[in-house]
Amino acid sequence: MDLDLVFLGTSASVPTANRNLAALLVRRGGDRLLFDCGEGTQRQLLRSSVGLPDLAEIFLTHYHADHFLGLPGMLKTFALRGREAPLTIYGPPGLRALFGSLERIFGKLPYQLELVEMTLGDGLDRGDHAILPFRTQHGVSANGYVLIERPRPGRFDVDAADALGVPAGRERGILQSGDPVTLPDGTVITPDEVLGPPRPGRKLVIGGDGVPGNALLEAARDADVLVQEATFLEDERERAAETLHSTALGVAELAREASVRLLALTHVSNRYFGPEVAREARDVFPETVVPRDFDIIDVPYRERGEPLLVKGGALVRPGDAEPGREPVPTVEERTP
Amino acid sequence: MDLDLVFLGTSASVPTANRNLAALLVRRGGDRLLFDCGEGTQRQLLRSSVGLPDLAEIFLTHYHADHFLGLPGMLKTFALRGREAPLTIYGPPGLRALFGSLERIFGKLPYQLELVEMTLGDGLDRGDHAILPFRTQHGVSANGYVLIERPRPGRFDVDAADALGVPAGRERGILQSGDPVTLPDGTVITPDEVLGPPRPGRKLVIGGDGVPGNALLEAARDADVLVQEATFLEDERERAAETLHSTALGVAELAREASVRLLALTHVSNRYFGPEVAREARDVFPETVVPRDFDIIDVPYRERGEPLLVKGGALVRPGDAEPGREPVPTVEERTP
Repeated sequence: MDLDLVFLGTSASVPTANRNLAALLVRRGGDRLLFDCGEGTQRQLLRSSVGLPDLAEIFLTHYHADHFLGLPGMLKTFALRGREAPLTIYGPPGLRALFGSLERIFGKLPYQLELVEMTLGDGLDRGDHAILPFRTQHGVSANGYVLIERPRPGRFDVDAADALGVPAGRERGILQSGDPVTLPDGTVITPDEVLGPPRPGRKLVIGGDGVPGNALLEAARDADVLVQEATFLEDERERAAETLHSTALGVAELAREASVRLLALTHVSNRYFGPEVAREARDVFPETVVPRDFDIIDVPYRERGEPLLVKGGALVRPGDAEPGREPVPTVEERTP
Repeated sequence: MDLDLVFLGTSASVPTANRNLAALLVRRGGDRLLFDCGEGTQRQLLRSSVGLPDLAEIFLTHYHADHFLGLPGMLKTFALRGREAPLTIYGPPGLRALFGSLERIFGKLPYQLELVEMTLGDGLDRGDHAILPFRTQHGVSANGYVLIERPRPGRFDVDAADALGVPAGRERGILQSGDPVTLPDGTVITPDEVLGPPRPGRKLVIGGDGVPGNALLEAARDADVLVQEATFLEDERERAAETLHSTALGVAELAREASVRLLALTHVSNRYFGPEVAREARDVFPETVVPRDFDIIDVPYRERGEPLLVKGGALVRPGDAEPGREPVPTVEERTP
């Protein structure tokens, strides 16, 4: 099953010419999960290769304006498109209070809007995966989120099944899905006799804003991808501590301790170029990337390879008289 | 004095990959006046050659979400930049009620925000020009705005002044600014003796949303540039009437009757390509343009030429490692 992360906005607090405000789309199979929704997110989707899907679920990390001001416009656009499917928005406590204010602006919607406040211990069990919130340290009500897949059954060992006399067909399917079968001669075959060891699922951690701490460390352990803000570098460590934001180095140290496979730093301050953020982190944790808007991180199953940053770029949408990509800058650029 | 209009958002109701929501910047000398502020306007400015100035005045035409949702984020950005200069927002009645809701979202600002509700008969006298609201027919409290310059004094006729014995120097300045002077021999020279006929000022009309009607016709008379929405074409005339929006043809007929010099149609629905909107209007009023985002209309004094559409394009800002323009499509494109 495909799993990737589309970086729709990678700037901190204020947009720049090159980076929009916080928004991240996770695509898993047919699911489209949006994490945070800064001003202009609907248009970032329209400018991307994704388009603007009728999102079913949006997760907010906290209620600073740069993380949610894209919601009223997006909800209005869904309404204007005649949407009828319900939409669920998840966030830390305070979500309903926020919407008490937002609803005065976007008014009545023709579809159902469900608001779900989540804290540590809550979680969404989706069968083959779960989405679990954890508390982050940002001085306000704030969640990070873990998307974790259950282990998949091991590979089916055809030779072993042949040797045990399991006929080709239905019985093998039953065994693969984890149940025993009884052969015509009365022999009971259990799945462990024909399946290899369970194969690990994948784990994404979206840390939101905040200082690196124990909750993030525990959440991030062995993650395939950790997405975390790095608003500051070490030369602004005091300011980072005051404002309860991460530094690139601080997150890199945590990523190393948590043995994550790939660290993606985002929420980049307009005081920095992109590259020095990556450089500072890579001194400690080489597997660090600082995605640009529209970049995608592809997350294959472990046996198929490492998470990979794919350079993106705004697309002119199909049907335009002038199709083709906007230019994809090949170097990291200053975003003043 | 330079005068131009920078089209920051030309889409109706919802953004597209190519067109953002309503916003128009008028630059006159050092003044920067923003008309409407759809979601994402601050970033459109950052992506343009203008940058995001500390705007002193913003004018709203009405309170549909696609015309104001960019305000909370822009006001927050000004706050984060440490702005101290006051900001005045003008709009039709209902402005204070709107901000009663918006203030719950953007919170306390470190600078003064003044809200001024304007209706027909109000107006801002700025000496050499005035900004006057008029009522538009959009079914809600809605203004259009006229920016009109006072006539400038006529050209100074050096030959006439010489013949009348006006010495070169201070006396000629007094005459040029409209006051009489008395020569040493007691002769009184009046300005009309040395000045040509007054030269007309310029007139911009920003119609906002609504059906073409008498108020718009009167406001638009002899305008150098009329900016008006054309959300629909004639094939959607009924829908235009129901929703109190203009059709391209309807506005073109008004522009012809009002003898405007250039008609700029905006607020383009995502159901249309750009060119057919221009085509429908040009059948009736050839001097019609349908600007794209970042296009600029330059408005010279009448004696210097006609208003001119300059093709724009998003700029990567100076200081970026990769300077230069994003591509400027050379054909009108579909914005689905």
